Amino acid sequence: MTAPVTPADILAAHERIAAHVRQTPVMNSGDRAFGLDRAISLKLELFQHAGSFKARGAFNNLLTRDIPPAGIAAASGGNHGAAVAYAARALGIGVDIFVPEISSPAKVAKIRGYGARLHVSGNAYAEAANACARHRAETAALDIHPYDAAETIAGQGTIALEWQAQAPDLDSVLVAVGGGGLIAGIACWYKGRGKGKVKVVAVEPEGSCALHRAMQGGGPVDVPVASVAADSLGAKRVGDIVYAQCVDAVADTILVDDAAIVEAQRRLWREAQIAAEPGGATALAALVSGAYRPAPGERVGVLVCGGNVDLSTYPT
Amino acid sequence: MTAPVTPADILAAHERIAAHVRQTPVMNSGDRAFGLDRAISLKLELFQHAGSFKARGAFNNLLTRDIPPAGIAAASGGNHGAAVAYAARALGIGVDIFVPEISSPAKVAKIRGYGARLHVSGNAYAEAANACARHRAETAALDIHPYDAAETIAGQGTIALEWQAQAPDLDSVLVAVGGGGLIAGIACWYKGRGKGKVKVVAVEPEGSCALHRAMQGGGPVDVPVASVAADSLGAKRVGDIVYAQCVDAVADTILVDDAAIVEAQRRLWREAQIAAEPGGATALAALVSGAYRPAPGERVGVLVCGGNVDLSTYPT
Repeated sequence: MTAPVTPADILAAHERIAAHVRQTPVMNSGDRAFGLDRAISLKLELFQHAGSFKARGAFNNLLTRDIPPAGIAAASGGNHGAAVAYAARALGIGVDIFVPEISSPAKVAKIRGYGARLHVSGNAYAEAANACARHRAETAALDIHPYDAAETIAGQGTIALEWQAQAPDLDSVLVAVGGGGLIAGIACWYKGRGKGKVKVVAVEPEGSCALHRAMQGGGPVDVPVASVAADSLGAKRVGDIVYAQCVDAVADTILVDDAAIVEAQRRLWREAQIAAEPGGATALAALVSGAYRPAPGERVGVLVCGGNVDLSTYPT
Repeated sequence: MTAPVTPADILAAHERIAAHVRQTPVMNSGDRAFGLDRAISLKLELFQHAGSFKARGAFNNLLTRDIPPAGIAAASGGNHGAAVAYAARALGIGVDIFVPEISSPAKVAKIRGYGARLHVSGNAYAEAANACARHRAETAALDIHPYDAAETIAGQGTIALEWQAQAPDLDSVLVAVGGGGLIAGIACWYKGRGKGKVKVVAVEPEGSCALHRAMQGGGPVDVPVASVAADSLGAKRVGDIVYAQCVDAVADTILVDDAAIVEAQRRLWREAQIAAEPGGATALAALVSGAYRPAPGERVGVLVCGGNVDLSTYPT
């Protein structure tokens, strides 16, 4: 299968959504932060509208596709739902959002706050996806897929376009993976525009590693899902489009355990006053735990991709 | 009294401390955020080392002044203490920090974590300052004043140097005020380098407004202190150097009540996933509450100056 998204699509998406999304900031961590042997470049996408990178793909879908009278529908661990609800409100479109019961209260509150019709069903993302599919069959609402759609991938890829301009000297970027739409877009941009100089590294929880298994086995397969980051990285299978996009463009897949994710959250708060959700801290966890060991002199970027977390239980 | 700090001092401080502090990011809020009628420029200084802008002044002091054998001592509502402790650890200097009992647990934990000798005394900053003065009389430790020292003011002013480069088109900047070292430095820079085009506006809690009273009365006077932001903005009097620096360079002083400060904290979290301490949200409170009403087309910058807050009680 040929990868359908190109850097030109990402550039077009960037121009299309620029008035609707935040250009999120990049910060150099400074020496010695997070117990590391070097300063790193943090792309702080957690400050995006609706709390994660998902707003980019949501707007890119809604601004390119025909919206039927039944409106739109999306299944989500929570972040995609919040982003689609936010974008739909901004553009005056009716929306139904389907989330599993594990979706965090912070995400559910945002979805409700943006005025979406909210449906909670099942214990995992896959069950919410089934409920969403039934709804679409009944109503002909337009599906906004959280990761396996070209418009979604091109939207998420706009992060890399921004990041390359903000931090042009990186050697590698670490990106958390759930269903893979984010890394598919980022890898597409850096492969096409970075002239192969920027290594794109996937980071997944040990208990939810759909891209790792797909890369090992030569294609998407179902995996078990159990992780502190499951409500954002809990897809049980990467998409076919995602896989085609990543297979030649992602350099490596790194696994981290839940303790490393929580420790990365703690360090982000203690050392930078940043409260990231577990999935948002997962890329940093690869460095903090030593699961990813950069080469001497390697200039590393870390994407902090989401911040929809309940502060009352944040690990401080 | 002649203002002792010049833009050249701030430029020198910038070069001196650059390897030790973070260049904190600036983010455009996007249209409609925080219930405002315009996008604003947020200078996100709360991500600074030790959790607030105070690290700048701390390093500028320690890198310019002679350190006696007894080391250094500082009184603080908490943020200055954390910053001095952080800087002292980085430079291998012994330090005693004096804080009042109202200092937040987040700040006390940071001071302890950086290895400082911590002394807790009294209910207000002024009592901690007295205890610190007694300690210095006994030991000849070097005082690092939280606001009324030229080295401190020049260090804090480096924020404006950065911000002007990051967001060169601002018409006004809103800055929270406690003892006034921060705004003294910022006003010095913008007055000298901004050619008078950038209006520097002070924002203070109604219950702790030492600069407002000084500007009204023609000089520093003691004021009562009672505010949700008292542990960072709770100075009972601005310094003489601060006043001399501000009297011709600060355009206006705006007052906000505690409810507006808490609402600004809530909006920063809900709409940008940023957890600021009360003092860090005070400048935004002037916009959110309508206490400061920018002119049509005015491009407004807001400094978010501190993030040492206890997440378990954050207003969400």
